[in-house]
Amino acid sequence: MKTFQVVGIGNAMVDVISHASEEALARLGVQKGIMQLIDMPRAVQLYGSIGPAEEVSGGSAANTIAGVARLGGRTAYVGKVKDDQLGAIFAHDLRAQGAVYETPLAPRTAEQETGRCIILVTPDGERSMNTYLGVTEFLTPADIDDAQIAQAEWIYLEGYRFDGPESHEAFAKAIAAAKAAGGRVSLTLSDPFCVERHRDAFRKMIREDVDLLFANRAELMSMYQCDFPDAMRAAAAEVSIVAATESEKGAHVLWDGQHRHVPAVPTRIVDATGAGDLFAGAFLWGMAEGYGLETCGRMGCVAASEIISHIGARPQDDLRARFRAQGLL
Amino acid sequence: MKTFQVVGIGNAMVDVISHASEEALARLGVQKGIMQLIDMPRAVQLYGSIGPAEEVSGGSAANTIAGVARLGGRTAYVGKVKDDQLGAIFAHDLRAQGAVYETPLAPRTAEQETGRCIILVTPDGERSMNTYLGVTEFLTPADIDDAQIAQAEWIYLEGYRFDGPESHEAFAKAIAAAKAAGGRVSLTLSDPFCVERHRDAFRKMIREDVDLLFANRAELMSMYQCDFPDAMRAAAAEVSIVAATESEKGAHVLWDGQHRHVPAVPTRIVDATGAGDLFAGAFLWGMAEGYGLETCGRMGCVAASEIISHIGARPQDDLRARFRAQGLL
Repeated sequence: MKTFQVVGIGNAMVDVISHASEEALARLGVQKGIMQLIDMPRAVQLYGSIGPAEEVSGGSAANTIAGVARLGGRTAYVGKVKDDQLGAIFAHDLRAQGAVYETPLAPRTAEQETGRCIILVTPDGERSMNTYLGVTEFLTPADIDDAQIAQAEWIYLEGYRFDGPESHEAFAKAIAAAKAAGGRVSLTLSDPFCVERHRDAFRKMIREDVDLLFANRAELMSMYQCDFPDAMRAAAAEVSIVAATESEKGAHVLWDGQHRHVPAVPTRIVDATGAGDLFAGAFLWGMAEGYGLETCGRMGCVAASEIISHIGARPQDDLRARFRAQGLL
Repeated sequence: MKTFQVVGIGNAMVDVISHASEEALARLGVQKGIMQLIDMPRAVQLYGSIGPAEEVSGGSAANTIAGVARLGGRTAYVGKVKDDQLGAIFAHDLRAQGAVYETPLAPRTAEQETGRCIILVTPDGERSMNTYLGVTEFLTPADIDDAQIAQAEWIYLEGYRFDGPESHEAFAKAIAAAKAAGGRVSLTLSDPFCVERHRDAFRKMIREDVDLLFANRAELMSMYQCDFPDAMRAAAAEVSIVAATESEKGAHVLWDGQHRHVPAVPTRIVDATGAGDLFAGAFLWGMAEGYGLETCGRMGCVAASEIISHIGARPQDDLRARFRAQGLL
């Protein structure tokens, strides 16, 4: 048995979550519903302009790994923080959830700080993300421990981390280490604009290395530049398993010529942050535990419904109990 | 018209909020339902033992001032943080709520960090607080700006700040500056064990300087060492206005030989942190706006019910709208 069911690699971030009106978004120049990269001066300016906030550990793949850990899965995370207060918070929250997190810290003398994501939540529950990457941008091949990756049944790569000069190489190193040890590779496309920025690199990785692709409707359409049904078909022709989410319409799981739709679990949306991340976490956990792919998709939808019912992108409720309540365990 | 309706002085803290079972409290050696002071090594050890957390600005008087600001009151806060990431979060959240906050920062080289309060919330919504004071312990008379205090209709003193060597002097300086300018003095007893530690000093201040006393049932009984009705009578004999809270039983307001009971507003308790703080904030705002004292008490109960319905001790909903819904505006 391998030590880890899932090892995730991504942007280590602390979320700074605040409520904002549609008018405030416009005034602040924030594009609604997507992730935009910002630099430190913009982060300072934006933070100075928003309302009171709360700080919760985030990071897309880290949220996924927190979900796997919350379910009792064996899991580890790789992503860079600094030896500062926000870095300590990020590390604490992953470890306290039961995940292994041993990535080297950027020293106190590092110029950049621990990454943060200023998330503005509008009254409709939609989130608009403003990401200052900080030290997490500088994930390099040196941060990938081949021995750890070899102990992973699955690695989970966060598309956002394509926004870093040496992170492509870090991903390539991780993929090689995983495959050499019989592990499999999953990837999330993360964001439609992230797909725009890296379409060719994503496409190459999908064709050559990816065994399981996570994407939402907008990301998949951006990837294949066609409508959603065609994009799902195109992805399924290239990847063994495709899990495509569609917000309140649920998700689609495609494999071996099969295409199953699984319904969303209705809930009051408080904050949509992390819905896709937790869908992936539950899906990966389900697969690692040997559940069928349709069940994994249903688990993903149940986990996503928990996350969007509260502020913050890490699970607060007992996800296994929710799976049981839906007859999935 | 004075610049400020209320200027609060207290412990500047960031709350680190985590859920814990009754068993976990016992295992961690945390006393339930009260505030205990801890040192940095204990803070590190405790933080390493608890589950994932979220960080939200707190501090008792700061929560009160955030409430006054949320209501649109003219208000300022005095309390010490360091020039670190948690200090920046604390300052941001007060200013973003509309309060003035200009206290000098402790420099980056200071040995202590920004104070934090590790709050463990049990399934019954009760909170057990573990406070590492950090730099906020070192509030001195030099931090009190007489000109600012003179511009306050009311000053609001946090009993917790009696736990600091020079803070008694800081309070004395603030009281003198306020009274000299025709301002009035309010005090919260903060915690029954805090009352134990400082009973004589509290008593002297109550008799000589305090115009309005906030206390909950346990604090008032600890102060006067008798049962609750007698303690309320004893307090009312010494102070012009007494506002005594009694959790789900509501609150009592005593003045000029009057004694009015105001009911609590029923709500589902998620996290009791900040209920007393926001009661005080709404009460002070109501007085500053010229409402009758019984109405102020009812406003306090409405504000408290908002705070306990969510995680964190700063208001998230529109308190004025809630006052209107109760016919108080």
